[in-house]
Amino acid sequence: MQPTRFDYDLSNCGIQRALDVLGEKWTLLVLREAIYGVRRFDDFARALSCGRGVLSDRLKTLVAANVLERRDYAEPGQRPRSEYRLTAKGRDLFPALMALSQWSERWDPAPEGPVARVTHRRSGRPVRVILSADQKNIGLSLSDLEIAAGPGARRLQRE
Amino acid sequence: MQPTRFDYDLSNCGIQRALDVLGEKWTLLVLREAIYGVRRFDDFARALSCGRGVLSDRLKTLVAANVLERRDYAEPGQRPRSEYRLTAKGRDLFPALMALSQWSERWDPAPEGPVARVTHRRSGRPVRVILSADQKNIGLSLSDLEIAAGPGARRLQRE
Repeated sequence: MQPTRFDYDLSNCGIQRALDVLGEKWTLLVLREAIYGVRRFDDFARALSCGRGVLSDRLKTLVAANVLERRDYAEPGQRPRSEYRLTAKGRDLFPALMALSQWSERWDPAPEGPVARVTHRRSGRPVRVILSADQKNIGLSLSDLEIAAGPGARRLQRE
Repeated sequence: MQPTRFDYDLSNCGIQRALDVLGEKWTLLVLREAIYGVRRFDDFARALSCGRGVLSDRLKTLVAANVLERRDYAEPGQRPRSEYRLTAKGRDLFPALMALSQWSERWDPAPEGPVARVTHRRSGRPVRVILSADQKNIGLSLSDLEIAAGPGARRLQRE
């Protein structure tokens, strides 16, 4: 007899363990900003318009999970500040974020077109997330990619 | 001058729109169960051990987003029941779930090994999520795949 879903306890599955770290909206949006190069607490808060308590909590979770690395620094005459940079483990979440984005663009496309265009830096070709059984094809990594504003990007006024 | 993150309003980006539907843990775990073939309300509740209110709410969100389709049916002598089946849009979320799982297995591998093994039905080869700029490679879809219990799957006692 074919085993069914109810023969197994899936509490240790990889999806669940990923969601234990990433399982809510703000955490993934903090990661999006980190991929776009945001590093300072105040800049994350400005980019996301979320409460500082929520942000502080999500940054702590991501540092504890070794997705972001915290570095303290002080500019002359300024109070000490912290920067949050993506680790290799954090950069490796890019395919998951891109898979979510690709799904939205496919099934609920923004009328003005995508906000970002992801291309292969070397060939200029558009990049997609795919499922592959070709063991020789290791795929591209974040450093192979160029992320640029797409037609749907709404430009803000400079402050 | 290079445009910066703060030149753009990203409130319409695909990641954010995906998270507006999927932005918390239970929603993605409901999807995991749907991929494993779970269809009935009571079975989702049993698989996830979550509250029935939370589950009902998440199923409604996924039906409203056309990720799951609700079908009502009645077995002879039983009260009417509902089934929830993945739509094509729902099946297309598999790469995002698999990207999360692959990330966990790579960076925080379960000591007993992965709970599930995903292979290409035709070749038997393991399947991975990759970033590709090869326009000729359209990738595999969920129906091309076989999902089987892996070495980390904990078998439950039959009830």
